[in-house]
Amino acid sequence: MFHFLNDYSESAHPDIIAAMQDAHLQQHKGYGFDEYSERVREKIKSQLDNKDIAIHFGITGTQANLVCIDAMLSPIDGIVACDTGHIAVNEAGAIEATGHKVILAESKQGKLTIEALEKVKARHSFTPHVVRAKAVYISNTTELGTVYTYEELKALSDYCRSNDMYLFMDGARLGAAIAYTHSNPNERTLTFADFAELTDIFWFGGTKMGAMFGEILVIPNKDIATDFNIYLKRHGGLMAKGYLLGLQFEVLLKDDKYLELSLHANAMAKKLSEGLEKFGVELFVPTQSNQVFALLPPELITTLKTEFDFYEWEQLDNGSTICRLVTSWATPEHQVDRFIAMLEAHSSNN
Amino acid sequence: MFHFLNDYSESAHPDIIAAMQDAHLQQHKGYGFDEYSERVREKIKSQLDNKDIAIHFGITGTQANLVCIDAMLSPIDGIVACDTGHIAVNEAGAIEATGHKVILAESKQGKLTIEALEKVKARHSFTPHVVRAKAVYISNTTELGTVYTYEELKALSDYCRSNDMYLFMDGARLGAAIAYTHSNPNERTLTFADFAELTDIFWFGGTKMGAMFGEILVIPNKDIATDFNIYLKRHGGLMAKGYLLGLQFEVLLKDDKYLELSLHANAMAKKLSEGLEKFGVELFVPTQSNQVFALLPPELITTLKTEFDFYEWEQLDNGSTICRLVTSWATPEHQVDRFIAMLEAHSSNN
Amino acid sequence: MFHFLNDYSESAHPDIIAAMQDAHLQQHKGYGFDEYSERVREKIKSQLDNKDIAIHFGITGTQANLVCIDAMLSPIDGIVACDTGHIAVNEAGAIEATGHKVILAESKQGKLTIEALEKVKARHSFTPHVVRAKAVYISNTTELGTVYTYEELKALSDYCRSNDMYLFMDGARLGAAIAYTHSNPNERTLTFADFAELTDIFWFGGTKMGAMFGEILVIPNKDIATDFNIYLKRHGGLMAKGYLLGLQFEVLLKDDKYLELSLHANAMAKKLSEGLEKFGVELFVPTQSNQVFALLPPELITTLKTEFDFYEWEQLDNGSTICRLVTSWATPEHQVDRFIAMLEAHSSNN
Amino acid sequence: MFHFLNDYSESAHPDIIAAMQDAHLQQHKGYGFDEYSERVREKIKSQLDNKDIAIHFGITGTQANLVCIDAMLSPIDGIVACDTGHIAVNEAGAIEATGHKVILAESKQGKLTIEALEKVKARHSFTPHVVRAKAVYISNTTELGTVYTYEELKALSDYCRSNDMYLFMDGARLGAAIAYTHSNPNERTLTFADFAELTDIFWFGGTKMGAMFGEILVIPNKDIATDFNIYLKRHGGLMAKGYLLGLQFEVLLKDDKYLELSLHANAMAKKLSEGLEKFGVELFVPTQSNQVFALLPPELITTLKTEFDFYEWEQLDNGSTICRLVTSWATPEHQVDRFIAMLEAHSSNN
Repeated sequence: MFHFLNDYSESAHPDIIAAMQDAHLQQHKGYGFDEYSERVREKIKSQLDNKDIAIHFGITGTQANLVCIDAMLSPIDGIVACDTGHIAVNEAGAIEATGHKVILAESKQGKLTIEALEKVKARHSFTPHVVRAKAVYISNTTELGTVYTYEELKALSDYCRSNDMYLFMDGARLGAAIAYTHSNPNERTLTFADFAELTDIFWFGGTKMGAMFGEILVIPNKDIATDFNIYLKRHGGLMAKGYLLGLQFEVLLKDDKYLELSLHANAMAKKLSEGLEKFGVELFVPTQSNQVFALLPPELITTLKTEFDFYEWEQLDNGSTICRLVTSWATPEHQVDRFIAMLEAHSSNN
Repeated sequence: MFHFLNDYSESAHPDIIAAMQDAHLQQHKGYGFDEYSERVREKIKSQLDNKDIAIHFGITGTQANLVCIDAMLSPIDGIVACDTGHIAVNEAGAIEATGHKVILAESKQGKLTIEALEKVKARHSFTPHVVRAKAVYISNTTELGTVYTYEELKALSDYCRSNDMYLFMDGARLGAAIAYTHSNPNERTLTFADFAELTDIFWFGGTKMGAMFGEILVIPNKDIATDFNIYLKRHGGLMAKGYLLGLQFEVLLKDDKYLELSLHANAMAKKLSEGLEKFGVELFVPTQSNQVFALLPPELITTLKTEFDFYEWEQLDNGSTICRLVTSWATPEHQVDRFIAMLEAHSSNN
Repeated sequence: MFHFLNDYSESAHPDIIAAMQDAHLQQHKGYGFDEYSERVREKIKSQLDNKDIAIHFGITGTQANLVCIDAMLSPIDGIVACDTGHIAVNEAGAIEATGHKVILAESKQGKLTIEALEKVKARHSFTPHVVRAKAVYISNTTELGTVYTYEELKALSDYCRSNDMYLFMDGARLGAAIAYTHSNPNERTLTFADFAELTDIFWFGGTKMGAMFGEILVIPNKDIATDFNIYLKRHGGLMAKGYLLGLQFEVLLKDDKYLELSLHANAMAKKLSEGLEKFGVELFVPTQSNQVFALLPPELITTLKTEFDFYEWEQLDNGSTICRLVTSWATPEHQVDRFIAMLEAHSSNN
Repeated sequence: MFHFLNDYSESAHPDIIAAMQDAHLQQHKGYGFDEYSERVREKIKSQLDNKDIAIHFGITGTQANLVCIDAMLSPIDGIVACDTGHIAVNEAGAIEATGHKVILAESKQGKLTIEALEKVKARHSFTPHVVRAKAVYISNTTELGTVYTYEELKALSDYCRSNDMYLFMDGARLGAAIAYTHSNPNERTLTFADFAELTDIFWFGGTKMGAMFGEILVIPNKDIATDFNIYLKRHGGLMAKGYLLGLQFEVLLKDDKYLELSLHANAMAKKLSEGLEKFGVELFVPTQSNQVFALLPPELITTLKTEFDFYEWEQLDNGSTICRLVTSWATPEHQVDRFIAMLEAHSSNN
């Protein structure tokens, strides 16, 4: 049995295990003041136009989101997210636990649009009876695996700046988003410098990209950056052994290792998608990164599940189910081939 | 330069690194539903009288504390801690961030006493103008490295039960506390079963005991245990790769590895203490675990700091400084010997 | 210029002013322990089947809502409200400030339906990634002035009880809701005893019903009632001069004064509605209480606003605007007549 | 039976009742946008050097404190209060409910000193493990009825400004404090202009000074003032009938009515104190305002309590009890005379 349930089933890339092995008996400084973390900060900054930017590390994605939002908002502020956004439903109230409303906006293929933002703004002008719509949350890739283009990000950024709002980007799968732009010649390639220019704060996840855990938090906006590590501490997000975060990201950033791993994950998803479509399966959204959303009929699900596991996302009225298949840096190509072979066999039997 | 600054400078015991190496390309279930975590739960339960107890995992000590307290208290409740307690000062407001007051009580060598609790109870009876003093926080070992005896724990537990209060034990260094009772024949040996009998919730820290990170949270009180993992998620304390926690604790619990490591740490601290006293240095509190609090004169500090680093805790009016020296599972005995040799050399020069 | 903007423009009914005059130099006990408050509690209880019910007082509606929700939910719980619900938008994040998510459900003429609740329940079963949908919020009358029938309330109550959820009713305009059932022979008359039987907690507002301010909070569910006054205090909702609340409600409850005042308010709204319909204006929802929602064309708005003010709720694509007209215990009938006369004049000119 | 339990037993001064009578059937704007409130704002501003200052209204003292603190602090900030301060114990965790730690400092006769602040600052420099000590809370008069002199306030203000901290003054009994400086020739008379110059935010209470309820919140610091009314709304502190606040304060500010009432209250307390001392009773602190703290032996307490009630504050080891006697604008002088007569009779019998 092999599964395409998620992209966090395997612990870490061998290079990371090896680096941990090398370093495990040395004495390091705690709480992020170590040399690995410092080198990672310098490495990121070397790729940015503005070098004077705060960079911190988080442990889990939920925590990165709640800490960033806690640092960004005043008590009277809410944050806009699209109705499919991760913070809208699946963070177990983590944002509300910091006292903030998540203001829902309509989504389009998992993305937030300017039109949806304008509706929110109109609704949130009835002071003092409403929270201020002070920040916008997006994730890239989105919950549906789609990727924001440079133009879309620029439009959101411009809207936020002209409306005195912050733009915050959750990058749990930012590696996959960057990889998408590298492998699609008609997209402008996205870089850390772009995100630092366009957002007020964003994070880059390691967990789904070869690391055991961890996120790099990049904070271009100085108002948000002040004493940020106290926000981390206050939420239990400051590791005593913070050097473990620096160490892992040093490996992932070396020669853009993360990009190589993300390109593999995306390629596996693309292959899966092409196989599905070849054998008559419709996709719910176009596959742009390492997540495939496919409309599978019940009997095909039954067949595939004898050998492969995956997540049944939502049942539709027509009897089909939107299923999610996720690939990762660790997905062996032969498992994808085997999956497609099953599709083919099923197709010829029906 | 070697330092005795803390017990989290080295990442992990070689056995843990090896176990991570072995498992790194397998597919595991996420969010604590994996087999390692399940086996650790069973192992702990096998040592308890009551088997029907919830067991979860945390990532950092601050987070373990804030999640446990959030799960334990109603909004109108506060938690009592002694004035030297970790949650009283050094958690950056993490407890208050969950909406709860930390009610200060006087301490004696880092410990909370029944007498101090009674004063708090008296002050907190002025309903509805005060929070309810609903829970008691202790850490074992304490912030000063002292260890609660069974009798002391029993007295606190009895007091709490007869006053409708919860007893919560922070075990960031619980391994060192258990080890102390093993190496002191006149103390009753403390076990997980004791803690499960006497407290309503306690945790057992891995970070300072050979693991990279992580805590085991044991919740004997069913009222606190309900849907506990949502509390973890809500505070960003649920790792996608939760199997990393199970995996590490399986190593530490195997053949009581953690105890072996803690006994070493304590032995190194004892040796340091004996050396200090031999050469005329007074201790601030008796050394019971892996922390030494010594009153060092300025010139000795200057001498020692040419080769060793340690934390200057508090300057006294008589010119001396309370210094903290911390040992760990990874402290090489030859560094302790070298430290004592410097003490001896300094002593003969003065 | 007369306005139908809201039902809190006039301070208090003359009987309340008179009672305040009578009592103003006596010494009273503070914080709700006074004799007026005690008599009001007894009066309410005398109308209930279950006499063993906690009764408290609040100061503002937002506060009543946030205190009740804070007392009712665990940190990991959210509360369901329909998308037009007061706590969904217009409480400036007051609910989120207590750490709780307001879970949105679809509404029908301002009401929550079982069908909408079932959709929410399905979405909120993905533990531990989601908050528990633990309580249901309704307001009666609703934000659109509609009134829940006994059958509708019973269905919601049954649903909540079989799903381990609390039912909470905001009664900012509960007087108007009760009055509606009194003046409509085909409705079962609603009583405090009904609300105490069907909900876990509800409140009855004074502000919009003749009092200067204040709410009576009735808590049939004992789990929610424990130490409730500490919740009030913690949110600044316990008045030193709490006897001012008891005093006012004693007046309003005497000979069902509140009902007489609410019947007047509803009758004025009904007369307005009939006038509007008579002269060709369509209503957005049927008028059941003291709020009228009418679709007014721009030129009629301009005409009416020369003499009367009211709130423009939402502009529609067809050029009309949903306008809200609110009546109260203090609305003079001659102002309603004057308004209808303007409608008639406008109608004959067009 | 007459009592000296507190200064909020009588509802309101007759002038306020009369003003309420006059206005009760007029239509007013809601939520503080009315003409009374506006006139009060203008009146206060006319007495300040800087006219560009935000002025709002609160309903209860606890709420005024929690709203001001919520508006003033970032999530990572704490507020310093002396150990006898109202927010330190008797607000039922209202400050912690906003997520903030109350940092305790030593007090001297109820007052905060620079020396105590310096100790706090030293303890709170261990970033990122501690909250920032960002604001200082004082109340004037203090919990012990003592009054800050101009010089003391200036010193605190200077300390705060040179340490990037806010100074916040709780004025539940600010009228009594001002009155004290008016009746003591060797004190500089304190004015609203002084408080606006020296603090970042302060409030002036009506409840204990002739009003039914209410506070004026004055916010000289622009960083705190932004969208302050949303903070009020978010905590349920914005009254629909906000004009009731403006109306009451207009009466109290007219011809400094509040000062006349406060001078009476203070004079009654002074007379009580002089009577107590004349007949051999020691005071716990000098009586400066409307609260008397006296050390009463048990038999005298028994005697007095046959006719008068008062609060037994704290029992001392020597058998005496610190008792608190509070006077107000409504205290009849003949009751004070009667009390002193009892003291005299008791004295001659013993």
